[in-house]
Amino acid sequence: MTKTPAWIAVDWGTSRLRAWAMASDGVALEERASDDGMGRLAPDDFEAALLNVIGDWLGQGPINIVACGMVGARQGWREAAYLAVPNRPHGGAFTRPLTLDDRLNVHILPGMMQTGPADVMRGEETQIAGYLSLHPDFDGILCLPGTHTKWVHVSAGEVVSFQTFMTGEIFALLCEKSVLRHSVQSEDINNDAFSQAVDDGIADPARLAARLFSLRAEDLVHGQDATNARSRLSGLLTGAELGAARPYWLGQAVTLIGDPKLMKLYAGALASQGVTAKQFVGDDATRAGLVAAHRKLQESLS
Amino acid sequence: MTKTPAWIAVDWGTSRLRAWAMASDGVALEERASDDGMGRLAPDDFEAALLNVIGDWLGQGPINIVACGMVGARQGWREAAYLAVPNRPHGGAFTRPLTLDDRLNVHILPGMMQTGPADVMRGEETQIAGYLSLHPDFDGILCLPGTHTKWVHVSAGEVVSFQTFMTGEIFALLCEKSVLRHSVQSEDINNDAFSQAVDDGIADPARLAARLFSLRAEDLVHGQDATNARSRLSGLLTGAELGAARPYWLGQAVTLIGDPKLMKLYAGALASQGVTAKQFVGDDATRAGLVAAHRKLQESLS
Repeated sequence: MTKTPAWIAVDWGTSRLRAWAMASDGVALEERASDDGMGRLAPDDFEAALLNVIGDWLGQGPINIVACGMVGARQGWREAAYLAVPNRPHGGAFTRPLTLDDRLNVHILPGMMQTGPADVMRGEETQIAGYLSLHPDFDGILCLPGTHTKWVHVSAGEVVSFQTFMTGEIFALLCEKSVLRHSVQSEDINNDAFSQAVDDGIADPARLAARLFSLRAEDLVHGQDATNARSRLSGLLTGAELGAARPYWLGQAVTLIGDPKLMKLYAGALASQGVTAKQFVGDDATRAGLVAAHRKLQESLS
Repeated sequence: MTKTPAWIAVDWGTSRLRAWAMASDGVALEERASDDGMGRLAPDDFEAALLNVIGDWLGQGPINIVACGMVGARQGWREAAYLAVPNRPHGGAFTRPLTLDDRLNVHILPGMMQTGPADVMRGEETQIAGYLSLHPDFDGILCLPGTHTKWVHVSAGEVVSFQTFMTGEIFALLCEKSVLRHSVQSEDINNDAFSQAVDDGIADPARLAARLFSLRAEDLVHGQDATNARSRLSGLLTGAELGAARPYWLGQAVTLIGDPKLMKLYAGALASQGVTAKQFVGDDATRAGLVAAHRKLQESLS
């Protein structure tokens, strides 16, 4: 890179730090990443971890850095208090951690919270803000599938309510740490087995607890193949989520924001329930959200 | 111990090996344990792991060793094929692993399996056999709560059918490995919170997926205390299990076999559903089952 960026965008989650050197027109000049996620850092470690990644992007003068995600959690660099819904996803003030290197003007975006039922998000609000910056008239449901899937009701540019499901984390724990790990070692998904399990999960959620061990037992007793078992596990958990999230999607306009492979699974599951979901790539939403936040920062400074 | 035992009883699970030096009248003279569970041993390691624990109990001559549990799994010392239900819990033949030390006459008990719905057990059949050896006229439901809780229909001395729930394993994974770990660090259980969550879990199992993350969010948003969160998590999972296991316990005579603290929780949850469960300590059932198996071995040899 031959010139100093106009500003730096940072997506700083629990396990990863990603940074983009940004031109003033919102184009990313370069992208970098490291494994220095919030989860492995103490508050005093954040500045060095950031400089490790972006140090040689800096010039002589100060530069604005806009950051979203768990970097603003209580265990993060500096806590950025949650913004209560209903509210615009970037309706709050930035939080400014102190830095030793006075070239770093770091601005951390707040997450959002809901008091009843209690819920929180950090990072997804930036994806929502990014999507809304490109679709300002959107009114409906956003679903952000991932480790902690969020179902979000958006109206008039505000997050009205949302609900979090631990589906992705539970799937990963069961696949990697539970007795089922012996029976689901496969990289593939069988769409038919997934769809059937989604239907089973939605139709009879009370039986979820009874169905999980049967994935192991079907392997031991009948030699069920691992792709089938993994697909069924994913489908059962996704079906349980869809059953519980029904008030969000039933008869609604749904847009998925996330990883393309995961969105494909969710879109298929929703299609089986008669819902045609649009899809928007999560990385693009994150970047658009950071660009929108930077624009807001500039407006506040001008 | 001044004299050589008449025989040796072994409960060899995934994570622990326990052995008892037995007198000929079925009394345990001494108990020992090690962490050499099946999960950390290759087939060639089992003999040495056993000798580490019981070596100095041996005399000059051969001795019968009766073992139950995962030692007989496919990944164990030598596979003891499952016995299909309906059948008596110790209705199958012993499996004899080869040993280098010819004083060791090892007899591994088979587990049980069910072809439809597929299910398996290894170790619990010995607890069931032990309980039935002391209650030969028992007819009804045995519930063995634990890492993998088993609900078992027993009639005329046979296991008629059974179903496994991963409740204990999922509870442990969520408490120790998931994002909920930050909010459930407590050693205690609040019985009111547990009972309320059991009721919630039974009444509306479809909402389980929606309720889990709220345990974390209630902490972040409202400062819910960890004992309350842990109790609710345990109750929600137990309630989901009871909801799915309803055909087993509704209007039935239920006896719990297991760890006393865990049995107390299950007994409370069942009581709230109008079921008065008897309790029988799991360790006593295991030992009684190994004694019954040894008696059968002697009969077969005489």
